[in-house]
Amino acid sequence: MNKIVLIGAGNVATHLGLALKQSGYEIIEVWSRHKSHAQELAIRLNSKAKDDMSTLSPDADIYIFSVVDDALPLLLNDFPFQDKMLVHTAGSVSMTVLENKTNSYGVFYPLQTFSKHKEVDFKKIPVFIEASNDKTLSVLEEIANSLSDNVKVATSEQRKYLHIAAVFACNFSNYFYAIGEQILKENDLSFDYLRPLILETAMKAQEYSPAKVQTGPAIRKDEKIMASHLSLLASQPQLKELYQTISHYIMEEL
Amino acid sequence: MNKIVLIGAGNVATHLGLALKQSGYEIIEVWSRHKSHAQELAIRLNSKAKDDMSTLSPDADIYIFSVVDDALPLLLNDFPFQDKMLVHTAGSVSMTVLENKTNSYGVFYPLQTFSKHKEVDFKKIPVFIEASNDKTLSVLEEIANSLSDNVKVATSEQRKYLHIAAVFACNFSNYFYAIGEQILKENDLSFDYLRPLILETAMKAQEYSPAKVQTGPAIRKDEKIMASHLSLLASQPQLKELYQTISHYIMEEL
Repeated sequence: MNKIVLIGAGNVATHLGLALKQSGYEIIEVWSRHKSHAQELAIRLNSKAKDDMSTLSPDADIYIFSVVDDALPLLLNDFPFQDKMLVHTAGSVSMTVLENKTNSYGVFYPLQTFSKHKEVDFKKIPVFIEASNDKTLSVLEEIANSLSDNVKVATSEQRKYLHIAAVFACNFSNYFYAIGEQILKENDLSFDYLRPLILETAMKAQEYSPAKVQTGPAIRKDEKIMASHLSLLASQPQLKELYQTISHYIMEEL
Repeated sequence: MNKIVLIGAGNVATHLGLALKQSGYEIIEVWSRHKSHAQELAIRLNSKAKDDMSTLSPDADIYIFSVVDDALPLLLNDFPFQDKMLVHTAGSVSMTVLENKTNSYGVFYPLQTFSKHKEVDFKKIPVFIEASNDKTLSVLEEIANSLSDNVKVATSEQRKYLHIAAVFACNFSNYFYAIGEQILKENDLSFDYLRPLILETAMKAQEYSPAKVQTGPAIRKDEKIMASHLSLLASQPQLKELYQTISHYIMEEL
């Protein structure tokens, strides 16, 4: 069970492919709607690039779909084989999306933020797996354990909540970094000044409960400072509203 | 110029005091409204605890106010001496709040999130200083340079924007970690699963512009997933609204 076709060439597909290759799996083909994307990743994986589903090799043991969630049902329609082992990597897509094509299907969800050219240590990434039957589960378990030291079985519903939690803790946090960057830029200040603070905030969360180490004007109920910040944000109504709403929640709920 | 009285015993005062002590400064007294807080820090600094402003020693070279911003004007009223060198550590308080008590005053603003019992490497913390005159500035510069490798002169206005940017990038990000923690808790999932993701998100921001490495459903405009997340958040209107608002901004602005 070590020949894999990778459907997708985005951030997740890239890092999953690299980790699989490093663990000794053979990525025989990489498919992307855009041939150039498929080629870019195929080169890194010593694999073949495809942009036409109908020409995929039938010889893989496993077909891993790692694509934008919306695209998955459409791609499955075009998938040319029956009764292959199919896996997807999406946090919020139920496993059963795969059930019409085969009896052997499952999910391999690595809970991490990936950017194509930023290296990650896959060993530390929590990977949540789920499968249609015990045999498929044990195949997925073996693959997952060879990539990561942190593998759990999770239901589709648990995976959705993991994904929502990740959107808040990662995607939205990153957006707030971007707001910080923008505020500094507007005032000719370097984003470098915020970097140690951002890292320390994340380091604290490695050891402590974030709710218990909240700092800043809101948790101190420092009304005067909050009013002064809101007045400085007067010309940016969106930021002002975010500041007000979130400060209010921090005061009320933490 | 190495005898210091520290007014305050909170998170910033604690870490500033520890860093000053380590750099060879003598913290001769620590004042807090709560004697027990003053004592707790005084022990760590090999100093004396005070809770009565009127009994402060007149022998310090510098008096550093590191207190909740709202409390600063009131404490200055009670400060018993004239013509001492006075410094505060607040991001959003103008330097001139100190001007009635002396001609030698300034600001020492370390841009970091501090929790009393979490160690930090002060050398890496950006410190923004400002002073009423050149002599005071050079004293502050010497102190700051002995504590940190990242010292800048900044105006009170620049400091305010640094503080606002820090509220978004640190305080609000931490609140979103806490939301992630809460969502997982409600679903009997460990916050440990989010920790590698939180760290990696912050690590990315050390190298890249956050606006350029944004990930998640909103930046991919994955409407179906966002709709499914919103329906799962139906019973938590605050979270639902935050999810909707921030996703909208990410789609529109990044």
